[in-house]
Amino acid sequence: MTREEVLQVLREKGDYVSGEQIAGLLGVSRAAVWKQVQTLMREGYQIESHPHRGYRLIAVPDRLYASEVRYGLQTKLIGRRVVHLNTTGSTNTVARQMAEEGVEEGTVVIAETQTRGKGRLGRKWITKPGGVWMSVILKPDIGPAHAAGITLLAAVSVTKALREAGAEAVIKWPNDVLVSDKKICGILTEMSAETDAVSFIVLGIGVNVNNDPPLETATSLKAELGHEVNRVKFVQSLLESLEEDYLTFKERGFEPILWSWRRYSDTLGRPVEVTYQDETIQGIAQDVSASGALIVQLKDGGTRKIVSGDCIHLKRL
Amino acid sequence: MTREEVLQVLREKGDYVSGEQIAGLLGVSRAAVWKQVQTLMREGYQIESHPHRGYRLIAVPDRLYASEVRYGLQTKLIGRRVVHLNTTGSTNTVARQMAEEGVEEGTVVIAETQTRGKGRLGRKWITKPGGVWMSVILKPDIGPAHAAGITLLAAVSVTKALREAGAEAVIKWPNDVLVSDKKICGILTEMSAETDAVSFIVLGIGVNVNNDPPLETATSLKAELGHEVNRVKFVQSLLESLEEDYLTFKERGFEPILWSWRRYSDTLGRPVEVTYQDETIQGIAQDVSASGALIVQLKDGGTRKIVSGDCIHLKRL
Repeated sequence: MTREEVLQVLREKGDYVSGEQIAGLLGVSRAAVWKQVQTLMREGYQIESHPHRGYRLIAVPDRLYASEVRYGLQTKLIGRRVVHLNTTGSTNTVARQMAEEGVEEGTVVIAETQTRGKGRLGRKWITKPGGVWMSVILKPDIGPAHAAGITLLAAVSVTKALREAGAEAVIKWPNDVLVSDKKICGILTEMSAETDAVSFIVLGIGVNVNNDPPLETATSLKAELGHEVNRVKFVQSLLESLEEDYLTFKERGFEPILWSWRRYSDTLGRPVEVTYQDETIQGIAQDVSASGALIVQLKDGGTRKIVSGDCIHLKRL
Repeated sequence: MTREEVLQVLREKGDYVSGEQIAGLLGVSRAAVWKQVQTLMREGYQIESHPHRGYRLIAVPDRLYASEVRYGLQTKLIGRRVVHLNTTGSTNTVARQMAEEGVEEGTVVIAETQTRGKGRLGRKWITKPGGVWMSVILKPDIGPAHAAGITLLAAVSVTKALREAGAEAVIKWPNDVLVSDKKICGILTEMSAETDAVSFIVLGIGVNVNNDPPLETATSLKAELGHEVNRVKFVQSLLESLEEDYLTFKERGFEPILWSWRRYSDTLGRPVEVTYQDETIQGIAQDVSASGALIVQLKDGGTRKIVSGDCIHLKRL
């Protein structure tokens, strides 16, 4: 018997349930039930214990425990396994190790805090408690050149989840999600691959949720909405939207994902400045390709396809 | 003091050298020298020990020890660190772990035998003692879509080393090297990458050298030349040719590598049958692209670009 099973009984009853009853339902001793109740309480679950009536669940902790994230989660693939860590170096690193060891597709690694949060190209990503820091293991049947499509997909899924939470999120090429022109989410896609086939992708998603924005140029859901949100519900909504988009991609390819990306994009149609390695170009962002490249119309009428780089949104003309 | 240092002294002298002299040169006790000599002898070095004259190196073992491979190696980058294993699952797996831990570019992992040798796309690769089974860690500044270029490069380097050893090697798209129409070498390129930048590449190279061919469709250097070759010299020649090609690529890109590939290719100009996923096409192999794709001219005059797949050389028309 696990503490999840005890928790499940307490949740389903919603009211007092005696230790004897729980013990009977799970086929264990009352002492064993008491032990699991104690574990749950140590984890932050508020459980009232009444000498005659038994146990009653009063409140769940503000933690992204697997038992919380999976409770009521409407997905089949993404999140069928959830690994929760109080703190870790980087969820992407943990997820990569698990993927190397052959863990199933859809496994999600969530940490309350990271000590070495990673951004793109070895940059630092500031991780504060109250945010959502997670990595999802995917095994799409694509070549490495198309992995950028998974980043576009994730940006779409995050944007949808943020909008559902009430924030007017938009996508900034290549993989930022903004609210009120400030960064609320970063995506870091890492892969292990042969030259012609991806073995696995680790999709790292960091969202500022109930934390204070870590930088002037950043924001959080709490800062935008003026109140904290239920992080578990937010993660569930995000995993559900990821699953929908990922299954759509599996069935129909990146094309339908691209249309959502274009719809949510704040980059397309704008004057932009794109820096790639040592070169900087200016122009109007015209479109994005299935491999994630930004197509920029230059002043001289020509176009440039930028495979990767950093993009600044310039003031609209 | 390491056994490599003792070995170095013995090599340089070429004749008897007393324990006292070695001890003096290396600043250690004679007992310590004797201990390292014993270790070397356990590893297969034949060292004569004479009560008055001292030690003399008579023969080195047929092993790809780091001390052997690095002795006289004319490279600066590839092989500046060599890790030798008597047996391992797969050198690529070991190299990937080392690369994850941040080991320097150019590190080479060599094993006498592998218990789970890997081929492309999860296929098995048969590893027999007497062959050369190694992995090289590279950190090129390229996007994942261009990693296939590193496979082309490796095929060129292997072909050159085999030709230097006296075998008329040719390249079969995508990454086989053939002698007398039989496979003598397989290359497995694995990478860890972000969507727009490769973190590291593990280049796995397996060459049938002094082993018997493992299959009817395979051959080995010994089978082709009619005699065994010095494996250490072969590995050195291979690492040197890899370094030359890799530095050329770093300076001038894939274009000069492609020209060598075209020169050594036995695929271009031939009628071929290419299978990709469930589709099979026939035509004349026309060219290879910088990203490793084979361009096939179809019967109807059109062309197809095959990013990856398996290729059969058909009889010339």
